Formats: sequence, C-alpha cells, structure tokens
Amino acid sequence: MMENLFIDTLISQVRALDQFGTWANKADEDILKEKYVKSKEDLKNIPVIADIDEMQIQDIRLIYQAIALAFEKKTGIMCSVVMEMSHEGFGRAVVIAEKIVIVNKFFKDAHRYSFRTYEKLCEEGDKMLADAIKIYEEYKK
Amino acid sequence: MMENLFIDTLISQVRALDQFGTWANKADEDILKEKYVKSKEDLKNIPVIADIDEMQIQDIRLIYQAIALAFEKKTGIMCSVVMEMSHEGFGRAVVIAEKIVIVNKFFKDAHRYSFRTYEKLCEEGDKMLADAIKIYEEYKK
Repeated sequence: MMENLFIDTLISQVRALDQFGTWANKADEDILKEKYVKSKEDLKNIPVIADIDEMQIQDIRLIYQAIALAFEKKTGIMCSVVMEMSHEGFGRAVVIAEKIVIVNKFFKDAHRYSFRTYEKLCEEGDKMLADAIKIYEEYKK
Repeated sequence: MMENLFIDTLISQVRALDQFGTWANKADEDILKEKYVKSKEDLKNIPVIADIDEMQIQDIRLIYQAIALAFEKKTGIMCSVVMEMSHEGFGRAVVIAEKIVIVNKFFKDAHRYSFRTYEKLCEEGDKMLADAIKIYEEYKK
C-alpha cells in the first residue's frame, strides 16, 4: 500500500513532465525502468569523469520530490525538497517537513544514481517514505 | 557577545578564501562592507535580468556557513548548509543541525542580497543565530 503510494506518485510526476506525449503509449514500469534501473553492466559503461547532465539531476530530484508528495498525501503535512549538486556529481538532497529533516541523502557519484531492479526502486522508495514518517512522528511538536 | 561571534566567524571565513592576500591590509569591517553592504542607490544600479554570478552565490553561502559555524562554536552541535540557487536568483538556503532545520531562507532576487548598513549585517546575523539556537532547543531530542 505504502509502496504503491511512492511509485504512483513518482510515475505521475514523471508523466507530468512528458510535455510532448513521448511516453504516452509506454507502460509505467517501462518508463521508470528506463530512467532509474541500471544493471552492473550498464554502470560499467558510464564514464566517471564526465560532468553530470541536467537531465540526470532532474531525474534524481524527482525521486525526492515523489517522497515529499507521497509524504504529504499520507500525512497532510506539506513538505519540500532542497537539493544541491556539483557538476562532478557530489551533492545532497533533503526533504523538509516543517522544521524537520525527514530525508537526508548524500551523493558522491550521482552519474551512477540508479537501482539494480524495478523491485529495488519500489522497495527503497517505500523504505525512505516509512523512515520519513517515523522521523516526523518522533520530532514533531 | 553573540553578535561578535557571528561577525568574527564570517570574517574569518571570508579571509580564509583570500588565497592571494588581496585583503591582507584591509580592515575587517571594510571587507564585509564591500561584500555585503549596499545602499538603496547601489541597488538601483544592479540589473535585475542578468544572471546571478558564482561569486555572489558564494558570498551568500558564506553568510549561512558563518551561522552554521557560529552555532557549532556556541553549542558544540555540528551543522551544515544546503543551498540551491537558480541562475535567475531564486533559491533557498537551509542550515541543519541533526534533524532540525535551524535556518530557512528563501531568495527571490539574490542579485540584490545585501544589508543597508554594517550594523544591520551584525544585527541580522545575530538574530539569525539566536533564532537558530531557540529552534534547536525547542526541537532537539
């Protein structure tokens, strides 16, 4: 149930950015696989020294934006994402609800940001969301 | 006392970046005035449509970094800055201690980020630091 909430939110965000209908006929799972799932073999082919491109940064941001939105749907508490990323792929993303940091993620090789399988993406999103709610409950006033 | 802590931290950060000794013979107050104090007249001469430059973004970051460091000196609690800024001068800076957002600042015209007088800079830094400590005390576990 929570798992679907994250994945449903993520896909609706991704589709919202599909201005030209490129993905209109594609299944949700296929779109998310294309964006976020990379095998070990795929990763070997990513040059480490190249600058990270804006598209990849946006795709990473969407994951945290989806956590933020899913958290809002679940709890009714507004939250927001602050993310900084250097061209070398070093960075940090935080999701903030009121004065509480509910997600805190460091990147050091964001070129390679990905999940090994689609199930892993669902699972990790689910876990981030559950952890976020737990932290919020612990710190809220 | 708190006021000096912020300003002392800020100037030591600024001087740490002065690799070539350009400011070695300049007084602290003059350096900070040059960077952060702008009169209404100065502001009129800043074009609104130009992209914000990296130097200005770094100078803004130093203010929040100084709050973070001053907070650490005062409380012994480590903290860090996450800042995002678009080329149009829209952005946000947060200072985070543990899971608590102790400073939260939005920018919408960062080209013009400045203080009217040196005293105003001291005062506002002082206030940000005092507020940060208050928020931390309220939320800490």
